Amino acid sequence: MAEYEVRFDSHPEPIRVPAGTLLVEVAKQAGIEIQQPCGGQGRCGRCAVKVESGQVRRRSVLRLSKSDIDAGYALACQTVIEGDASITVPPPEAIQRRLTTDHIAPEAAIPEGYDASSAQSIRRVEIRLTPPSMDDQTDDWGRLCAAFRRETGVERLNASLDQIRQLGAILRSSDWHVALTFDASPKGEARLIRVQPADEAADAPLYGLAIDIGTTTVTVWIVDLLTGQVIRQSGEYNQQIARGEDVISRIIYAGKGDGAAELREMVLGSINGQIQTACERTKIATDDIVKATITGNSTMMVLLLGIPAESIRLEPFIAPINHVPRLSAIEVGIAMNSAGVVDPLPGVASYVGADITAGVLSSELRSSDDLTLFIDVGTNGEIVLGSSEWLVTCACSAGPAFEGAGVVHGMRADAGAIEEVWIDGGTYEPDCRVIGNVPPRGICGSGLISLVAEMFLTGLLDKGGNINETLDTPRVRQGHNGPEYVVAWAAESEGEEDIVIARVDIDNLLRAKAAIYAGFNVLADSVGVPLETAERVLIGGSFGKYINVEKAVQIGLLPDMPWERFNFLGNTSVKGAYLALIDSAARDEIAEIASAMTYIELSADNTFYEAFTSALFLPHTDLSRFPSVEAAMA
Amino acid sequence: MAEYEVRFDSHPEPIRVPAGTLLVEVAKQAGIEIQQPCGGQGRCGRCAVKVESGQVRRRSVLRLSKSDIDAGYALACQTVIEGDASITVPPPEAIQRRLTTDHIAPEAAIPEGYDASSAQSIRRVEIRLTPPSMDDQTDDWGRLCAAFRRETGVERLNASLDQIRQLGAILRSSDWHVALTFDASPKGEARLIRVQPADEAADAPLYGLAIDIGTTTVTVWIVDLLTGQVIRQSGEYNQQIARGEDVISRIIYAGKGDGAAELREMVLGSINGQIQTACERTKIATDDIVKATITGNSTMMVLLLGIPAESIRLEPFIAPINHVPRLSAIEVGIAMNSAGVVDPLPGVASYVGADITAGVLSSELRSSDDLTLFIDVGTNGEIVLGSSEWLVTCACSAGPAFEGAGVVHGMRADAGAIEEVWIDGGTYEPDCRVIGNVPPRGICGSGLISLVAEMFLTGLLDKGGNINETLDTPRVRQGHNGPEYVVAWAAESEGEEDIVIARVDIDNLLRAKAAIYAGFNVLADSVGVPLETAERVLIGGSFGKYINVEKAVQIGLLPDMPWERFNFLGNTSVKGAYLALIDSAARDEIAEIASAMTYIELSADNTFYEAFTSALFLPHTDLSRFPSVEAAMA
Repeated sequence: MAEYEVRFDSHPEPIRVPAGTLLVEVAKQAGIEIQQPCGGQGRCGRCAVKVESGQVRRRSVLRLSKSDIDAGYALACQTVIEGDASITVPPPEAIQRRLTTDHIAPEAAIPEGYDASSAQSIRRVEIRLTPPSMDDQTDDWGRLCAAFRRETGVERLNASLDQIRQLGAILRSSDWHVALTFDASPKGEARLIRVQPADEAADAPLYGLAIDIGTTTVTVWIVDLLTGQVIRQSGEYNQQIARGEDVISRIIYAGKGDGAAELREMVLGSINGQIQTACERTKIATDDIVKATITGNSTMMVLLLGIPAESIRLEPFIAPINHVPRLSAIEVGIAMNSAGVVDPLPGVASYVGADITAGVLSSELRSSDDLTLFIDVGTNGEIVLGSSEWLVTCACSAGPAFEGAGVVHGMRADAGAIEEVWIDGGTYEPDCRVIGNVPPRGICGSGLISLVAEMFLTGLLDKGGNINETLDTPRVRQGHNGPEYVVAWAAESEGEEDIVIARVDIDNLLRAKAAIYAGFNVLADSVGVPLETAERVLIGGSFGKYINVEKAVQIGLLPDMPWERFNFLGNTSVKGAYLALIDSAARDEIAEIASAMTYIELSADNTFYEAFTSALFLPHTDLSRFPSVEAAMA
Repeated sequence: MAEYEVRFDSHPEPIRVPAGTLLVEVAKQAGIEIQQPCGGQGRCGRCAVKVESGQVRRRSVLRLSKSDIDAGYALACQTVIEGDASITVPPPEAIQRRLTTDHIAPEAAIPEGYDASSAQSIRRVEIRLTPPSMDDQTDDWGRLCAAFRRETGVERLNASLDQIRQLGAILRSSDWHVALTFDASPKGEARLIRVQPADEAADAPLYGLAIDIGTTTVTVWIVDLLTGQVIRQSGEYNQQIARGEDVISRIIYAGKGDGAAELREMVLGSINGQIQTACERTKIATDDIVKATITGNSTMMVLLLGIPAESIRLEPFIAPINHVPRLSAIEVGIAMNSAGVVDPLPGVASYVGADITAGVLSSELRSSDDLTLFIDVGTNGEIVLGSSEWLVTCACSAGPAFEGAGVVHGMRADAGAIEEVWIDGGTYEPDCRVIGNVPPRGICGSGLISLVAEMFLTGLLDKGGNINETLDTPRVRQGHNGPEYVVAWAAESEGEEDIVIARVDIDNLLRAKAAIYAGFNVLADSVGVPLETAERVLIGGSFGKYINVEKAVQIGLLPDMPWERFNFLGNTSVKGAYLALIDSAARDEIAEIASAMTYIELSADNTFYEAFTSALFLPHTDLSRFPSVEAAMA
């Protein structure tokens, strides 16, 4: 068998290995320890290394984006040597950062053959007007409209009174040579955004925003509309969190006194703060930002727009508006050109919002005839089942358990959160991985899934979720809330008390996972196909980004399928907003998706309760649906 | 010859007179003195009496509106007895009021065969929505839009974010049974004005406003849109007068500091004050006023809308905007339903505004093939010459001389203004009629015309406008401003000084009248027809309401033609606004008129200066163009 030389940046000598050797093995021979928290299953992405040159074969790229791969990244546990190669092992912090926050490197690739000048709806046209004279006394606005029609063929130019007020001065100061920026939508109409002196606009940029308002996180991408390129990405907690973790508590808060106005200010603060920071760092003028697309669940959308949200919460759970007309920035309050266009993307129902329609678009669910399951589990859990032909959707009132809420020691996936747990089957002692490698403060969603799975497989939990109090370990004890398991002693942790998981926490998690799994079943039943026949499972949302599929299957949250069917797509919502921003056809398709989706309201569905009850067990009442778990238990 | 019995309300016995006796003669026999300031020529309208019953023939109705005639009014100096009759002689104050201010009695007649439900653009439709349920989770806005499309066939319903915010509560409080008020324009679209519970809207009225913003006077008509009927008319000085009498001084004021904002507040004060008073008196809720059409000259229009007016004043004198898009009341600031539609009617040029296009419409200039001259002399002088086939127009910078400005003792046509003067050809003593029958305070426009004509015919003025200082009268003397004529001694007047007209005042008046007459000539020359061949002269504006044609011809302000060709139409501008309000076809026609008019800028016209110079004389350099004046001088 052929042998090859592999060089590491941190090792003086090349290592010779036979073809087909795994990169983690080669590294070990060089004395370099590469972290493999998932045990080398290619699921955590923490073993990513950079192949600077040479030939390798990536067996799995589950945790890598296309741009990662283009940049040379490979999972050391899933990549074999097929030629001489030169490898850089990034410091653990770099990997952590790459995996947990969006930074300047864009995740979204510009669609192939993309032409910004025709694909997106913002246009800029230069117009040289004949100056008025005693012989040609056409009024300013009429002169502009006539020239605009001649230049663009667009019949109707819509402008605000404020724009008309400013026109005369600009026409004269520019010597009747201006550039008009406008939104060419709907067809045959134009919405005037800006009139500038032509020389000022000549090399001027045009920017857009793709904004995703999550219940927990607000994400903002700044996009160059002339090229389609993402300039900057950032994410920040939604300031509204201070007034409630989930949509229901936000709606209740909004209904009291000035609550709605306060929540609106808060989310605008989260959006505008990011825009302002980004503009400062990138030297972008907010006036040059002329368009924004917005996604978010229906509650986030109406709270942003100042529309009362109460009907979302009360039976029969009606969204105030799914298809919001295009608005101007000044109406919405976004820190951009005040006449800029804000396009809130369409949703489907009170609990299936624009985040899901945008996610279905960007996940490319509809690109295949295969039966596909799309899951976005953030603060809420929304599910879509479908193909290029049809789409059914539902929302599971999972609650924010998977974002750490509803669990006494739960927390968000911040530094100090236990994100993965391994429990020794003999001693019941846990081994935890903590975000940021600091003493633990609590347990985040992925940590909870991992913890419950491990407790179940080691016999700390029975299939009903009861803690086995007969085991010989000090970690199982009676707490304030009944039986509990100590995940970290106070001495090891950041706080002054032990980090525990109690029976009540486990009940919450079981209800959350059961709601989601039951949702899968109701959707599959509604169209008469077995859930397990889905060829692809597309996982979006922050939850999907860090989840350990194996553990999620073990607790019965995700269906038991071959791992290669699972695809982790990150924030599919903001990606959809981005595509809608730079491509009018994508925007149209989102509207089409919103119209095409059949929404099933689970609380009105007779089969849901039964499916939910069956799923309240670990992993499920019907163990035959979880063959891999059955095998692990054996 | 047959004899008839005539009864007067104020006389016990009937009077027997032969058929054909003039009413003034019959009254005289009864000992009743009827005022005839114009000398019984049917031109002043002050001899109007009411024919309660019986048969009369009205030889002339020059000063009477259709509604006057319908109410039984007749000019005593122009009406003969043709049967037994019963007559009421109104007290002089009543006549004065009827002639000088608009009150509750509408001047405008509803067009024949008028159907409000189809003619005007405001519609109200009742919609019973299927309430949402667990099985039908369509969003509120989508539910409304779908039902609206079904009910009306109109595809696109445009609403503001604010209206969407309010929707959910109204739908639920009305039990999903609502009435939508909307503006059905442009075709295929609807602009939502109001959503109300259906029972609240069932018998609810719908009102509109026709607003004419004159430089001097702001006129407001409140109209019942369900019938087309005018509910109330009122007029009030434009508060902007305090910041300048003419458009030029207003534009200059607007250009300084907060001047524009201040002027905007002022005109809004004039409009909204009248609306509020009218609403209080008629128990109309401003929320029920859902549409307004606005006319006014181009300066008044842009000052109202907060658009900089400077370009109107500076060569080449360009209007900022002639065709203003439909706006919402809240944008403009009119005291009506904030989502109501405000439709500023289109103008032609910087000095030919919507008041003229609306005037051309309401004057029915285009209804005949005859060559017709339309004059609107208010604070400015605008002229239109044309027929059903074509229209040419110009504006004369006459200045507000005919509204009493630019003349030392000039004043507006208020109580105390001398409005007509007769001078004794032997003694040069004047006999004045004063508005309100009070001691005089000054001279208004019609008084100035009358005064100059009388001075000319009695030899106090020569044809160059020079005061003859050789005459034996104490009324001609040297004043501060050169030679002057005393119209009223201080002892007879309200003030402490003599009311005089000086040489400089006469110069101002000559320039004003010359500008207008030259305008007539330029228009006629531009189309190659002699001015005097005009079959009709339509006179609009406040000036036209009180003018004495004979005197106006004598000074050379109006062309010398048979009197029956002159028609006094009052405020043609607000009438046009009214027609546009209640009839979309009329609105379209105004736009057509605005587009069809050929505008001639006099300051750029070579023939204007010559025509102006020739017209600076009394009545004109070419006396042969004024045969009736030539005859009077003989």
